[in-house]
Amino acid sequence: MHMSSLFSVAVAGASGYAGGEVLRLLLGHPGVRIGSLTAGGNAGERLGSLQPHLVPLADRVLEPTSVETLGGHDVVFLGLPHGKSAEIAASLGDDTLVVDCGADFRLTDAAAWEEFYGGPHAGSWPYGLPELADQRSALAAARRVAVPGCYPTVSTLAIAPAVAAGLVEPEVSVVAASGLSGAGKSLKPHLLGSEAMGNASAYGVGGVHRHTPEIIQNLGLVHDGDVRVSFTPMLVPMSRGILATASAPLARDVTQDEARAAYAAAYDHEPFIHLLPAGQWPQTKAVVGSNAVHVQVTIDEAAGRLVAVAAIDNLTKGTAGAAVQCMNIALGLDETTGLTTIGLAP
Amino acid sequence: MHMSSLFSVAVAGASGYAGGEVLRLLLGHPGVRIGSLTAGGNAGERLGSLQPHLVPLADRVLEPTSVETLGGHDVVFLGLPHGKSAEIAASLGDDTLVVDCGADFRLTDAAAWEEFYGGPHAGSWPYGLPELADQRSALAAARRVAVPGCYPTVSTLAIAPAVAAGLVEPEVSVVAASGLSGAGKSLKPHLLGSEAMGNASAYGVGGVHRHTPEIIQNLGLVHDGDVRVSFTPMLVPMSRGILATASAPLARDVTQDEARAAYAAAYDHEPFIHLLPAGQWPQTKAVVGSNAVHVQVTIDEAAGRLVAVAAIDNLTKGTAGAAVQCMNIALGLDETTGLTTIGLAP
Amino acid sequence: MHMSSLFSVAVAGASGYAGGEVLRLLLGHPGVRIGSLTAGGNAGERLGSLQPHLVPLADRVLEPTSVETLGGHDVVFLGLPHGKSAEIAASLGDDTLVVDCGADFRLTDAAAWEEFYGGPHAGSWPYGLPELADQRSALAAARRVAVPGCYPTVSTLAIAPAVAAGLVEPEVSVVAASGLSGAGKSLKPHLLGSEAMGNASAYGVGGVHRHTPEIIQNLGLVHDGDVRVSFTPMLVPMSRGILATASAPLARDVTQDEARAAYAAAYDHEPFIHLLPAGQWPQTKAVVGSNAVHVQVTIDEAAGRLVAVAAIDNLTKGTAGAAVQCMNIALGLDETTGLTTIGLAP
Amino acid sequence: MHMSSLFSVAVAGASGYAGGEVLRLLLGHPGVRIGSLTAGGNAGERLGSLQPHLVPLADRVLEPTSVETLGGHDVVFLGLPHGKSAEIAASLGDDTLVVDCGADFRLTDAAAWEEFYGGPHAGSWPYGLPELADQRSALAAARRVAVPGCYPTVSTLAIAPAVAAGLVEPEVSVVAASGLSGAGKSLKPHLLGSEAMGNASAYGVGGVHRHTPEIIQNLGLVHDGDVRVSFTPMLVPMSRGILATASAPLARDVTQDEARAAYAAAYDHEPFIHLLPAGQWPQTKAVVGSNAVHVQVTIDEAAGRLVAVAAIDNLTKGTAGAAVQCMNIALGLDETTGLTTIGLAP
Repeated sequence: MHMSSLFSVAVAGASGYAGGEVLRLLLGHPGVRIGSLTAGGNAGERLGSLQPHLVPLADRVLEPTSVETLGGHDVVFLGLPHGKSAEIAASLGDDTLVVDCGADFRLTDAAAWEEFYGGPHAGSWPYGLPELADQRSALAAARRVAVPGCYPTVSTLAIAPAVAAGLVEPEVSVVAASGLSGAGKSLKPHLLGSEAMGNASAYGVGGVHRHTPEIIQNLGLVHDGDVRVSFTPMLVPMSRGILATASAPLARDVTQDEARAAYAAAYDHEPFIHLLPAGQWPQTKAVVGSNAVHVQVTIDEAAGRLVAVAAIDNLTKGTAGAAVQCMNIALGLDETTGLTTIGLAP
Repeated sequence: MHMSSLFSVAVAGASGYAGGEVLRLLLGHPGVRIGSLTAGGNAGERLGSLQPHLVPLADRVLEPTSVETLGGHDVVFLGLPHGKSAEIAASLGDDTLVVDCGADFRLTDAAAWEEFYGGPHAGSWPYGLPELADQRSALAAARRVAVPGCYPTVSTLAIAPAVAAGLVEPEVSVVAASGLSGAGKSLKPHLLGSEAMGNASAYGVGGVHRHTPEIIQNLGLVHDGDVRVSFTPMLVPMSRGILATASAPLARDVTQDEARAAYAAAYDHEPFIHLLPAGQWPQTKAVVGSNAVHVQVTIDEAAGRLVAVAAIDNLTKGTAGAAVQCMNIALGLDETTGLTTIGLAP
Repeated sequence: MHMSSLFSVAVAGASGYAGGEVLRLLLGHPGVRIGSLTAGGNAGERLGSLQPHLVPLADRVLEPTSVETLGGHDVVFLGLPHGKSAEIAASLGDDTLVVDCGADFRLTDAAAWEEFYGGPHAGSWPYGLPELADQRSALAAARRVAVPGCYPTVSTLAIAPAVAAGLVEPEVSVVAASGLSGAGKSLKPHLLGSEAMGNASAYGVGGVHRHTPEIIQNLGLVHDGDVRVSFTPMLVPMSRGILATASAPLARDVTQDEARAAYAAAYDHEPFIHLLPAGQWPQTKAVVGSNAVHVQVTIDEAAGRLVAVAAIDNLTKGTAGAAVQCMNIALGLDETTGLTTIGLAP
Repeated sequence: MHMSSLFSVAVAGASGYAGGEVLRLLLGHPGVRIGSLTAGGNAGERLGSLQPHLVPLADRVLEPTSVETLGGHDVVFLGLPHGKSAEIAASLGDDTLVVDCGADFRLTDAAAWEEFYGGPHAGSWPYGLPELADQRSALAAARRVAVPGCYPTVSTLAIAPAVAAGLVEPEVSVVAASGLSGAGKSLKPHLLGSEAMGNASAYGVGGVHRHTPEIIQNLGLVHDGDVRVSFTPMLVPMSRGILATASAPLARDVTQDEARAAYAAAYDHEPFIHLLPAGQWPQTKAVVGSNAVHVQVTIDEAAGRLVAVAAIDNLTKGTAGAAVQCMNIALGLDETTGLTTIGLAP
């Protein structure tokens, strides 16, 4: 592949975690050339001082996020605060592939948007979870992609096969432990290292977290009829990773083998989903830095529930890896280009 | 209080985490004198080399765990591997208060014991969770106390008021994130710091963790009829603390106020349980080193579930603090002597 | 001790780490009554929402920091940003004991103050490191106390006995690894948990850290003539604790026994300094939450250097514990009242 | 590059951290084919259960480490306990490239070997630090390579340019903070997560750490005459990374610019060494998972010392990355093949 065949890519929000992770992945992607890097308050600064791990880009200076700096690229990744993507996207040509790592275009239901995010609903774009029923073909034709939230990605992938196969009642409970980078580079007291280290803390309990309607929307695609989801996130003292435990009441007698077969059928051909061997349970460190999803499922007969656990890196498969995966699909590249299933451990 | 009025206390397993934490608390307890400190493989070593934080006891040398070393004390705390307590306890006089931090005497149901622990059931002792219905009076008369498991303590306290008040169906789901000290000072690869840091990992999923029947037993004390519990533990990268999320389907329409009132009624007079103000959620670091339990409850109307979260220090309220609390009750001391509700943060 | 004999204590900066730790210690101090709690931007908030670990004070509401709120107490602790203490202190009566956890009054040398802090030098107060030559008697008579910086405390205590005994040339190198709470509850990107976890980072290298002149000042008290100090701090991923390695060229042949004897002579009567047995090295977790200092010393013959290591909790002995220790001395109480040498581990 | 042109590579010790990291890198290396994977006690197990992050190799079963399993490959990486490499290496053909991640062949001085490691000296092999004077050409011709220790790599690279340029006296002090993976997957109590988290601990103080003579040996290659090194390691609570602070007395007046120029001259052409812009200091997370070395240098005029700080990932540039880098050199491949300077952050 020679220079002229590379896709030109711009990244808005290059000083944040989503933007930084997109860049980390793009630096290893053979099909792209990294164009404009933009930021809000950090415009004018060297990337090296903000993202010191991105050595090959250390001397790049951030430009302001604008139509001028983002225009003229084949692909634009948006890593912006929610509410900021619509205006930028509207100004970019229809033939530009715009991949939004934010929430603005994830929900199809305007009422859910208004309830959980407030303000007017900007609409919805093709949803960047290729492993979910029917999304892959929509993504292949897309020039706009809404990258899923990190919790919805891991929660959906943990329980969707069981819901889709009718093994469980559509009454799903998810409790997910997340590393702090999921909250972004936000200067909030509870995200300080001195507060967060040695600490597991609950937040967004009781159905109020914004990712709740997105999980419901996803499971609605694999189930006819209402789905109810109780979602509880917590912060645990690590930078990256989400471990989600999802469970639901059994709809009928289900054996371990049957449950496993449903998951195997759903995931055996997925390049990034790794159904672990029986008896081995997911851990986040096995997927850190990778686009892999590790999944395991079991039946708790005494409790009458199916229990599934999934692990992802919230910044990779949960954000930037999914973004690159969707870019690959939309550009007609091999879906796995520039991505890996190999985590960084220990 | 002069010397002759102090209770003489021995600690078996003084080199382990439970034993070390018992000693940390006893060093601040005005009513006791620390007698024999015993260990298995570490007998003969200075305590200072094994528990360097216990400076006032640094030069004490560990004796072997035996009837000879443990006999003749008013109180004996046992911090032994499970299966080891029965023989030691049998050799100690009936008037010696024996407080067992292990699992041997927690379960009343021999079949549950055999299913989850294997081997013959040694019987059951008064159960050291004073906040659970009717336990306090039994403990006041006890000369043998079984200290609850850490997960059962936090899980039970999180959901028992809702179950007892009939607010929820007796179909409880608990997902609990624990620090590593809950696994003891065991030399297992997955407990190594290099494995555990930056890692959240699932284990004991699907109803197979040994603490499951203990939670069921506890909730059975506040509910007539069967209780089903789906319990999922996970390890998160911190030394101490458990954060448990417990939820169950609403039995009927329940308002936030009603749920809160049930918890307030159950806990307002409890010296160690702190029902947080509405909107504030538990975090483990607020209770580290203390005997406090922080609890919060809410109603997820859309999901039709009550969700409660509780935080404890697994080594304090989850083990050694409960042990000292029970000792206080059994000896007729003020229940809070030598214990605190003040955590060590940040 | 009945109510009327308790000293009334106010804490300015009660929402910060220094103030919170002072309160944690005062809650266990039998000789004081906690009066006004004040803050800057957090005035009007419940303490429980800011310092959830301080359960007994959860419902106290923070007042604004002012002469009105702080006046009329026997003791006032100041946990304020540097530059804010002088004005407040000037407004408090000369018979009020004012203990400043900030830097304003630590340095006697105005030129050093101006070089490292900028702005005019406010003067100096008795220096709150009782273990340093001749400080204890000055503190006993003081009504103003400057609590040392955390790095100067641990660095000074690590190497002062060797300097004082003439075992080493006065050319000291210190490299100290600190937990993040040493930086306070400051909202800076590099202090975010997602940045700090899994990360060791250098800062303030090359003699530019503000604590450098304070270490030099301290060592100057035990050595006639110039002392040079190369001080390098680093942040490591923990909330609390500093581990300092201090070394200096041997002034002459010195044996291990001789070095040890110098440290034993200096510290054997100090209630908070624990010279570890030969072969055992300090670790911060052994001192977390305590006022203890763990010290060890050795001779590296091949390198021709004496090497000493010391560990403290930066918030306790490094700040609030020292503050309470000095209060005890100044009030004529037992120096150890309300303080412990027992750390919280694991 | 088609199949027949790939070099066949075996890894002994594939269940350990060095072996696992070699495999992680080889999976991304376009010039090799992964052959036998061997282990000691873990032979017969699935790699997926021991190294769950290496998904593409999950179903490979570990063979016993022996001449039979390791023979017949182009390259053999040894990640064995020290003392085990010599025998295996002797049985492998002279034309097999053997890259030893252990210590057996690092030291040229038999007396130093015996003092620090005990037992007979096995000899020395070309030393795998290409950035050190004259090593690269020796490595190009080598069929045996001794990969440096992690501490010697970072310590040497931090201070060698200053020593080589005669800016400092050859009296070097190094204090290095390391993550726990540097200690390997050893089941020792102090390496447990519950002990290590929240803890900074000193060890190997006073010139007794085995890496001391290796640092001296390295600096001896850039300085005529004796070099003295005071080396102090510490463990800090992270999995990966070493941050080393190295300093030495100035040999004469040296300006910041002069110091910087010496480092730039030494490193500007090195593909893996990144001299940070003035004012930016190394942090380990910027290099995690990469083969990069971040370096910064300054002059402390008041202390009369040059101070340099360097950061590496102990498992990558400190072990497995260096091993692959040396393999590339010895096989005539581009030195950077399969390696990156891009770290994984946050």
